[in-house]
Amino acid sequence: MAYDVIVVGSGPGGYVAAIRASQLGLKTAIIEKESLGGICLNWGCIPTKALLKSAQVFNDIQHSQEYGIEASGKPNFDAIVKRSRGAADKMSKGVQFLMKKNKIDVIMGFGTLKAKGQVEVKGADGKTTLVEGKHIILATGGRSRELPALKQDGKKIIGYREAMVLPQQPKSMIIVGSGAIGVEFGYFYNSLGTKVTIVEFLPRIVPVEDEDISKELEKNLKKQGIGIMTGSEVTAVDTSGSGVKAKVKTQSGEAVLEADILLSAVGVAANIEGIGLETVGVKTEKGKIAVDKFYKTNVDGIYAIGDCVPGQALAHVASKEAITCVEQIAFGEKKYNHQPQPLDYNNVPGCTYCFPEIASVGFTEKQAKDAGYEVKVGKFPLTASGKATAVGHTEGFVKVIFDAKYGEWLGTHMIGYNVTEMIAETVVGRTLETTYHEVLNSIHPHPTISESVKDAIEAAYGEAIHL
Amino acid sequence: MAYDVIVVGSGPGGYVAAIRASQLGLKTAIIEKESLGGICLNWGCIPTKALLKSAQVFNDIQHSQEYGIEASGKPNFDAIVKRSRGAADKMSKGVQFLMKKNKIDVIMGFGTLKAKGQVEVKGADGKTTLVEGKHIILATGGRSRELPALKQDGKKIIGYREAMVLPQQPKSMIIVGSGAIGVEFGYFYNSLGTKVTIVEFLPRIVPVEDEDISKELEKNLKKQGIGIMTGSEVTAVDTSGSGVKAKVKTQSGEAVLEADILLSAVGVAANIEGIGLETVGVKTEKGKIAVDKFYKTNVDGIYAIGDCVPGQALAHVASKEAITCVEQIAFGEKKYNHQPQPLDYNNVPGCTYCFPEIASVGFTEKQAKDAGYEVKVGKFPLTASGKATAVGHTEGFVKVIFDAKYGEWLGTHMIGYNVTEMIAETVVGRTLETTYHEVLNSIHPHPTISESVKDAIEAAYGEAIHL
Repeated sequence: MAYDVIVVGSGPGGYVAAIRASQLGLKTAIIEKESLGGICLNWGCIPTKALLKSAQVFNDIQHSQEYGIEASGKPNFDAIVKRSRGAADKMSKGVQFLMKKNKIDVIMGFGTLKAKGQVEVKGADGKTTLVEGKHIILATGGRSRELPALKQDGKKIIGYREAMVLPQQPKSMIIVGSGAIGVEFGYFYNSLGTKVTIVEFLPRIVPVEDEDISKELEKNLKKQGIGIMTGSEVTAVDTSGSGVKAKVKTQSGEAVLEADILLSAVGVAANIEGIGLETVGVKTEKGKIAVDKFYKTNVDGIYAIGDCVPGQALAHVASKEAITCVEQIAFGEKKYNHQPQPLDYNNVPGCTYCFPEIASVGFTEKQAKDAGYEVKVGKFPLTASGKATAVGHTEGFVKVIFDAKYGEWLGTHMIGYNVTEMIAETVVGRTLETTYHEVLNSIHPHPTISESVKDAIEAAYGEAIHL
Repeated sequence: MAYDVIVVGSGPGGYVAAIRASQLGLKTAIIEKESLGGICLNWGCIPTKALLKSAQVFNDIQHSQEYGIEASGKPNFDAIVKRSRGAADKMSKGVQFLMKKNKIDVIMGFGTLKAKGQVEVKGADGKTTLVEGKHIILATGGRSRELPALKQDGKKIIGYREAMVLPQQPKSMIIVGSGAIGVEFGYFYNSLGTKVTIVEFLPRIVPVEDEDISKELEKNLKKQGIGIMTGSEVTAVDTSGSGVKAKVKTQSGEAVLEADILLSAVGVAANIEGIGLETVGVKTEKGKIAVDKFYKTNVDGIYAIGDCVPGQALAHVASKEAITCVEQIAFGEKKYNHQPQPLDYNNVPGCTYCFPEIASVGFTEKQAKDAGYEVKVGKFPLTASGKATAVGHTEGFVKVIFDAKYGEWLGTHMIGYNVTEMIAETVVGRTLETTYHEVLNSIHPHPTISESVKDAIEAAYGEAIHL
């Protein structure tokens, strides 16, 4: 065999798997059909955060008088998009550097399983090469899911990829779906002056979050001028005119929305087609590759990680799965002494980078109650936070959920300024099976928004100082 | 006795002590000579963070083109100061509300110990009242320390209080001292266009921080245009002209600096004068009130917390000391079942809010080595962080220090965008006596700057993915 490990796909699952494999002494190749870094670096996490930062700077300029600054400005859409592409390119080049540094062979082309231990790679020029290796890790990722009524044409009905490189800023936009992608683009375009309407099928936006978070975000987005229709479904789209006309079934009847563009943000579909799963007999389940807790498929020597397997479709999940998968392979190969610990999917943080930001981990209040816990809930509004007051952003709150019986930290749900940088505390606390007592004995620096975690815990236990 | 607890001073030590005491069923009075909330809320943490936010907004405007925004603007100094005062006033009113809500008697005036259980309060009108209580907690705070060569006149040679309400923006400013106060004001005034020179007696700025932090901050502040003279001492100041002329003894000789104003930021002096310590025989040590681990002085029934006792002169330290002190009093009074845990002063985070921000906790590398530890050190530069790249702020790094033998997390030292919101993770981890392994098994969300803590730990253990 030429390689110990072949990785198919170079997103945050694939490239991390390749690096860890190489670190552990496994000869490794990585196959990529498009750009190193995958969707996350090129068409996801990184370029969207660059766009959002431009929106935030523009928002600050619009509100500059509140900060004692006399200023005016206008966004240059082309320049904003260009900057975002630059950030993506820089990170992709970074992965290229890491591959070289770790002596990983990069093979450009589309990989397909041919047999156990064999991947055929078809290059851009149509030529194929056969790559052989003992362990094959599929990290083929996902793509924008398509609904039958929202067939994407890439021009007027688009997915997230097109949304970050539109040739010009649309005057109006319908966004279908209010998960992280939907509300982030909603915030971005609305901030720059596009009239945005978000249509959500479920009764509330960001439906995976705690209900209080959904309410607070809806209130804030509406205040920013975003139209929100929940419990509503786009049943048909007419693209024959200059823009789009979307027929929307609402709770009270039917409405027609008109806009320049419709962005479909209804989730992610796993890339499992045409990669030879059938050829070698790899089992799938509900559109994803079935794996065990160490990411082995039903076929020996074939593994899968990231968006193409069950679990949250998030970059940081893919990266952690990559490390776990590779360490287990290395453990089997006697190249690593420790068997890795399987992931705790209930301790995976989720972040949304619109404004206000959302960060959460663990059980929502409802999930905790449904699971039979008697809960202690504490909520600290950022109106009571000194730091939030000082920076002029008192929107949002920190909500914590503890098990009343044993004091287990069940979940944290935050919405507000900078909260995405604050969630790691809860994750580490939960990994270490902390109780509220140890967290309150850990001094949180003043003045920060992160203090509000402490304040929320105090509130849960009837010891709130600042409420 | 009229009260169970009398608190003298209503800063973040005093007002928190009063609230916790009241919560635990102790009848409580609080004495304040000026404004509820003390220095922190009125002349410290809160108003300075408001000023700094204005500076950051203005910086963003100046760099708006890098974000694809065409903008221009100029700071309105009066409006910036006014906004800062507004933030302070709001928080002070918040404390007023909390006092009322918790049924704490607020007595305005200057408190002086008269005897055990007796505090005399002199009001603004000169009238005195005697307040009696079983337990007296001194939380009198601190003030800007004065050096003989830098006698403050409040006009040309000023302290931090004057620095946040100057009648107009100075064209030039000398700042003596490069602790948090010095560099924060340096960043603020320089951002608005004041020519700033910082003079530090010790060989490096922010001398309490890890040496790498000092170097990185100096590089960044210099790049921003701030003059920095380390190993230098202002020996005399001439205020006879229109501005100030400061004679500076440098490592290579003597220099004369001229500026509109000189800000003395050489530390904090405890407020221990005129409060009757001698009358009742309370012992002091090196200018601070001597206390045991539960903040009891040598005199029964008299306690002291916050800036007037040893330990870091930080708001969050004062607040935690307040809770510990009061819970111990309540425990003694059989009003509370748990004896509190004494503070771990080695696990107190410190934050500095200039740009780039600094956040740190625990041993510096040098302190760890001096203490005899064999260390594992990991450093992750934010140039390699996707989030830092996306937001356009790749200055700085995260540095972690572990004990090589048992894996104890000895310290974290961070400098960069938003790092002040990230330090709580380390504090909680250290309280729970974590090792690197559990932190790496805690998934950090992507893309955040907080991931860099994980990346730095990986680097310390030779498992760096992104370096």
